[in-house]
Amino acid sequence: MAGFVMQSLGCEVAALNTVNFSNHLGYGQARGTKVAAAEINDLYEGLKESYLDDFNMMLSGYLPGAASVEAMGAIARDLKGKAATKPGSFFWILDPVMGDNGKLYVEEDVVPAYKNLIKDADLILPNQFEAETLSGVKIVDMDTLKQAVTTLHERYRIPHIVVTSVSFPASGAERRLSIVGSTCTSAATPRIFGVSVPAIDCFFSGTGDMFAALLLVRFREAVSETPGLMDKEAWVSGDEVEATELPLARATEKVLASMHEVLTRTKVQRDEEIARYHATIEGGKEKDEKRLHLLVSKASEVRLVRNVDCLKNPVVQFKAGRV
Amino acid sequence: MAGFVMQSLGCEVAALNTVNFSNHLGYGQARGTKVAAAEINDLYEGLKESYLDDFNMMLSGYLPGAASVEAMGAIARDLKGKAATKPGSFFWILDPVMGDNGKLYVEEDVVPAYKNLIKDADLILPNQFEAETLSGVKIVDMDTLKQAVTTLHERYRIPHIVVTSVSFPASGAERRLSIVGSTCTSAATPRIFGVSVPAIDCFFSGTGDMFAALLLVRFREAVSETPGLMDKEAWVSGDEVEATELPLARATEKVLASMHEVLTRTKVQRDEEIARYHATIEGGKEKDEKRLHLLVSKASEVRLVRNVDCLKNPVVQFKAGRV
Repeated sequence: MAGFVMQSLGCEVAALNTVNFSNHLGYGQARGTKVAAAEINDLYEGLKESYLDDFNMMLSGYLPGAASVEAMGAIARDLKGKAATKPGSFFWILDPVMGDNGKLYVEEDVVPAYKNLIKDADLILPNQFEAETLSGVKIVDMDTLKQAVTTLHERYRIPHIVVTSVSFPASGAERRLSIVGSTCTSAATPRIFGVSVPAIDCFFSGTGDMFAALLLVRFREAVSETPGLMDKEAWVSGDEVEATELPLARATEKVLASMHEVLTRTKVQRDEEIARYHATIEGGKEKDEKRLHLLVSKASEVRLVRNVDCLKNPVVQFKAGRV
Repeated sequence: MAGFVMQSLGCEVAALNTVNFSNHLGYGQARGTKVAAAEINDLYEGLKESYLDDFNMMLSGYLPGAASVEAMGAIARDLKGKAATKPGSFFWILDPVMGDNGKLYVEEDVVPAYKNLIKDADLILPNQFEAETLSGVKIVDMDTLKQAVTTLHERYRIPHIVVTSVSFPASGAERRLSIVGSTCTSAATPRIFGVSVPAIDCFFSGTGDMFAALLLVRFREAVSETPGLMDKEAWVSGDEVEATELPLARATEKVLASMHEVLTRTKVQRDEEIARYHATIEGGKEKDEKRLHLLVSKASEVRLVRNVDCLKNPVVQFKAGRV
């Protein structure tokens, strides 16, 4: 997911696989193996030995255990160290993949491993559960969300934060998702903006990776539009820039425009595919629950390759507002 | 390479990695691991268990040892078996990657493993050396090349063959490459066509995979333009179709148009990158031969992601002719 999104927007990508699975875990079953931490180290050594380690950005995602999180962290720190004399020349986006909806789906030792690492990241992308886990703040409304973001800036000195997919008890008829981001000021105070989008009533897999990959491209693009900002440490905008005018806010708007369009199209095709399937079987409804879950999972796969135009040409409908 | 090419032309791809290396072997060194045959089997079992094995086409490429060649072959045969009642519903393109320029670069037991397999493939894509190895005919001119193709059709009953990159001693000033293809008739006689393109004076890696992936898409497209042909066993055109009018010939023309454009652009950027490098070092020329080889290898990486338009919109300049 992440590799193709970045490539289709023009990035040369070196993908370091951390698992080699037959399918994503949304199916509830998978075969294959995890890549050992020693092999992650070894692959990076291989890149270094052939002068293939001149990266501008790094995006880290799903890592199943603490040892592989630490191996990934060592790579990021090495790349950061090499770039130390040239501020802004290397940027690390860390997606602290740990769980969702109140449940951890990695080994427990992954949590302290991320807590040790994220102070070196430039941008983190926790979902609501991960933001709670890292900040220790239970998020139940906008106030506690702001408190969590403030805590993350303060405790870990992270310049940029985007909390993806926050969902509060619905007030109106239409269920919506909030995405809340912040770039800290020079005084380490948050500048918080939010974007609200209509929720699509369907479980998709890989949308976190899709968000991260799109944000990598769109954030770099937005930063490059402010003269001199790419040469500043961690691309932190000057204190005069308002929350809703941050490059991170501009980027988030474009990302959500692309995602909403791709997922809306996916939902239509998914529903058609499921209806077609039911029409072919006796009784019109699959009775085997496991089989139904697998077929629905497949039908819900994000329709990416034929919707690259949505990635390339986002039409912004949902604007960032103050929180 | 192959995955991105197919995806950027609209294919949903399930990539089953057979190696997990830091870089391609053109660098002369790499770290990482080969995926064991048992894991290849296991990943395919995983796909089957979740109803993810409904493939229209399969492309097999580099496999480092006989056991993994056999594991891949078992997958192709299983998919073919499932499609047996619906002719044309599954198509297997086999690239018998074994070596180049007279040298084997896989283990020796890979050769008999491919010889046992290719009778079940629909289309094979050997280069000159691989065509010699499989046919037992030494290719030195057009006559021996035709003899090799005829032997492959007869001995292995392969419906479609494309011999990629054939180079004979130059007759004129400009070095050219020939690509020779054939779809057999119902009497198993060859229908041979050839396309000649200017050679680009540079060693590129991954161009075999690029050719194979583009041909997969363009051949399917060309076949779909003949009503009913997709429902025929192995998509073999009726005997009335001339060699140069074959869907395989149309597809090869488009593939070569895309490749020539991408590689021409790559060569320009490669030369600029190497010149820029030399300009930064004392003496204007890298003295360390190993380092130079690594830097040139990197500079020669095919510029794919920013040239997707060349893949999507090939402008045919080199037409298939009779051989």
